[in-house]
Amino acid sequence: MRHSLRHWLYVRLQPTAWHRRGLSPLNRFFVIVIGVAVITAVIESEPEIYVGRENLFLAAELIFGSVFLVEYLLRLWTSAENPDYRDGWRGYVRYALSLPALVDLLAMSTLFLTFFGSQTYLLRLVRLARILSLAKLGRYSRAIRAIADAIRSRRYELLMSLVIALILLLASSTLLYIVEGSGQPKAFGSIPRAMWWSIATLTTVGYGDVVPVTPLGKILAGLTAITGIGLIAMPTGILAAAFSDAIQKHHHDQMEDRE
Amino acid sequence: MRHSLRHWLYVRLQPTAWHRRGLSPLNRFFVIVIGVAVITAVIESEPEIYVGRENLFLAAELIFGSVFLVEYLLRLWTSAENPDYRDGWRGYVRYALSLPALVDLLAMSTLFLTFFGSQTYLLRLVRLARILSLAKLGRYSRAIRAIADAIRSRRYELLMSLVIALILLLASSTLLYIVEGSGQPKAFGSIPRAMWWSIATLTTVGYGDVVPVTPLGKILAGLTAITGIGLIAMPTGILAAAFSDAIQKHHHDQMEDRE
Amino acid sequence: MRHSLRHWLYVRLQPTAWHRRGLSPLNRFFVIVIGVAVITAVIESEPEIYVGRENLFLAAELIFGSVFLVEYLLRLWTSAENPDYRDGWRGYVRYALSLPALVDLLAMSTLFLTFFGSQTYLLRLVRLARILSLAKLGRYSRAIRAIADAIRSRRYELLMSLVIALILLLASSTLLYIVEGSGQPKAFGSIPRAMWWSIATLTTVGYGDVVPVTPLGKILAGLTAITGIGLIAMPTGILAAAFSDAIQKHHHDQMEDRE
Amino acid sequence: MRHSLRHWLYVRLQPTAWHRRGLSPLNRFFVIVIGVAVITAVIESEPEIYVGRENLFLAAELIFGSVFLVEYLLRLWTSAENPDYRDGWRGYVRYALSLPALVDLLAMSTLFLTFFGSQTYLLRLVRLARILSLAKLGRYSRAIRAIADAIRSRRYELLMSLVIALILLLASSTLLYIVEGSGQPKAFGSIPRAMWWSIATLTTVGYGDVVPVTPLGKILAGLTAITGIGLIAMPTGILAAAFSDAIQKHHHDQMEDRE
Repeated sequence: MRHSLRHWLYVRLQPTAWHRRGLSPLNRFFVIVIGVAVITAVIESEPEIYVGRENLFLAAELIFGSVFLVEYLLRLWTSAENPDYRDGWRGYVRYALSLPALVDLLAMSTLFLTFFGSQTYLLRLVRLARILSLAKLGRYSRAIRAIADAIRSRRYELLMSLVIALILLLASSTLLYIVEGSGQPKAFGSIPRAMWWSIATLTTVGYGDVVPVTPLGKILAGLTAITGIGLIAMPTGILAAAFSDAIQKHHHDQMEDRE
Repeated sequence: MRHSLRHWLYVRLQPTAWHRRGLSPLNRFFVIVIGVAVITAVIESEPEIYVGRENLFLAAELIFGSVFLVEYLLRLWTSAENPDYRDGWRGYVRYALSLPALVDLLAMSTLFLTFFGSQTYLLRLVRLARILSLAKLGRYSRAIRAIADAIRSRRYELLMSLVIALILLLASSTLLYIVEGSGQPKAFGSIPRAMWWSIATLTTVGYGDVVPVTPLGKILAGLTAITGIGLIAMPTGILAAAFSDAIQKHHHDQMEDRE
Repeated sequence: MRHSLRHWLYVRLQPTAWHRRGLSPLNRFFVIVIGVAVITAVIESEPEIYVGRENLFLAAELIFGSVFLVEYLLRLWTSAENPDYRDGWRGYVRYALSLPALVDLLAMSTLFLTFFGSQTYLLRLVRLARILSLAKLGRYSRAIRAIADAIRSRRYELLMSLVIALILLLASSTLLYIVEGSGQPKAFGSIPRAMWWSIATLTTVGYGDVVPVTPLGKILAGLTAITGIGLIAMPTGILAAAFSDAIQKHHHDQMEDRE
Repeated sequence: MRHSLRHWLYVRLQPTAWHRRGLSPLNRFFVIVIGVAVITAVIESEPEIYVGRENLFLAAELIFGSVFLVEYLLRLWTSAENPDYRDGWRGYVRYALSLPALVDLLAMSTLFLTFFGSQTYLLRLVRLARILSLAKLGRYSRAIRAIADAIRSRRYELLMSLVIALILLLASSTLLYIVEGSGQPKAFGSIPRAMWWSIATLTTVGYGDVVPVTPLGKILAGLTAITGIGLIAMPTGILAAAFSDAIQKHHHDQMEDRE
């Protein structure tokens, strides 16, 4: 009865194949393992917590890696139940090369990297890979896809406001470079350097590590800061309109259904 | 005539039982006491004001505590008039364990804690409890409930934008930890440490106490700051759509009433 | 023909009595004088510009003060043409006590204050009074009144979001006072002191002159910063809905007019 | 067949004359050259990159300048195909004096300026001019025009919120000058100086290079920061309403078309 076991597993592994509300108990378990693995990767990076508990964390990594390995193999095996990949060994290959499968492979691969990762910099890359396991969550969430749809419906306007932002970034950092460049060569001595100040001002972050000191530089900085308000207002306005539109369409559909 | 006095008091104590507009004179008195108690607790914490006036503040605390004690007992006694708690001693127990009653108890309890609270740290917790007396105001406000309803109607979308914010927080702090970790171990030497910088940047607060110094770190910081704009835009857009929808539904209902 | 001259002047002085588009030439002249007077008051406060040009600025102040004095007397005289104040000397008194007339009097009074204002601090108050002459502009602008109407239509919701902001301000400054108070007594040693940090964080200004240093303090600060996003989103959402509603009502009225 | 070659070029040079989707291959080439020229101008300003590669950048500048020179001459020649400029040599003059042609001339002029620009300050102006070549992109973009239309439809309300912002800027900087001026003469010693702090606070940038230190100054600063939230909320709300309105009008037009 190998086939029916595969189908039983497929229904529990593939969120879209699960017909009851929410996630299957098996997927809920994987979501929890992903969450715990990410939190472990985050706190493990803190030397004050890690030093002296190396074996504990190594054990945790091996457990998470093993769970992800089993999950990967199960998903590969049950992919043959998916109508999209139901063509023998070609289906297996096509599934293995799909984006979700590659993300799974990357998240799992840290299991093996751990054995070689003794160097500090490599270790950091391993941790990045392990936090990438969060990307696996995308598989489980329909809600994020809904928000993504709303953003996509206005992607053109949002892209344009990004282009406008880039032009303003370029303009303000060029002006500040001209005005403040000779006085503060370290902070404004080139356009790329002035961009660091400019981006902090346009996004209203305002670290304050570098600030213009000449009167003309301060006037230009003030204008840049006011422009930054517009830069926040534009995407916010576009998104507000997009969400409002989505809600009204929803109401409209409900009304037509009732009639 | 014990019963009718209880009813007379109940109508004056329970905002939803008061049939005229606004608050009853008794509740208005309690609102003022709460406000004065909170302001007292705030300014009392300032040593330059407190030292030399200990007895004055102690007297004020005793007065506020007594008023809250009397209020608590009256509310407990009149709870039997409330249809929800009209089942003898069981009703009293159920009322005493309800959230508003527990908040009242906590706010009142500072009266007794004051006698023991000589230690600095305990004293601070007492002040927290006394400022919690502000939560009692929630009992009086229908308007806050209206805003809470609007937020609740979009709680799913707002939750999702919080999840997206957390993912971005994790991603940017991991990247900055990798890039800036070796150069600035105190500020970026672990993912939790880098999170402090990351949250200040994503929310566009930008304290500037820690900033990346390498070119790659600055580029990633700039991208994080731009992403922060999107993070402000998403909940704002969702809430704007929610309020807009609530207004239109209101107009629609009014129109249908007229027809 | 004293009466008809008064009417001729009244029409040119009172914006609502002027039947052609925009402002009368006389009012346009006063608007320009107000603007120049405000700019003069601003740049006059800068010692590097003021010192050595005292007489020039004194002359300018006398000219502006004289224009405002003449304007005040003309407005008082022509107020008898206004249907609201057409009851003899009582009308004059009632006009003189109306808000716009008092603002005019205050703006003009700096003419006399200049002669006595030799002390630095008094001089600064005089400058405040002179910048107040900008409030006279409110008389000329219908557009600001339109925006004020939109804000007023949602004043209740906006007030509630201010109340919520105050509660959050109180909560976050109390928590930071408890956690960081003993370590940084100067910055977090009392609730009012912690409020300075808290308001800079909740509004996402983030000066960075005081920041929490303990891990728990940083976690609470992060939560405060995220809450600050909601604090920006709420009034923005409310105002967006208000403006959207105003536009739609406008369209609706136009459509009904066409039918 | 000089005429038909001119027409063939005109169709490929003038975006509005190109009848297929997107940009003509020739214009796509010019867009790429503009992008590369801007990036070159940005990184060339960084001494660490520029020094030692002077000839490389000089060569790049000559190439970009030559391309822009050829483009300018071609556009001038083909302008006679444009119905707006089809009146002989007068048309050529009128085209040469139109805004896009002047921008092209300025962007191209850096070709000649490079030969004379040995002085640091002049060199910086040349770089500004070369980054202005980005303004040429406006010629190719219909989408930016769409956003500009939305902004223009609410230009009056946006202008009013700018006026309100200026009044608040003036009020807060005057108050801080009065309160903090004597204590911190360098930062708050005049109204223009206090404006630097005020604009950083109202826009929620918050550099933190200058902050009030007196209790009254801090209270006023807190009020300014809260006002800043309103200043962000106003234009955002106006733009959100404008975009929402544009979307609904679009839907409405589509519905009428279907009927």
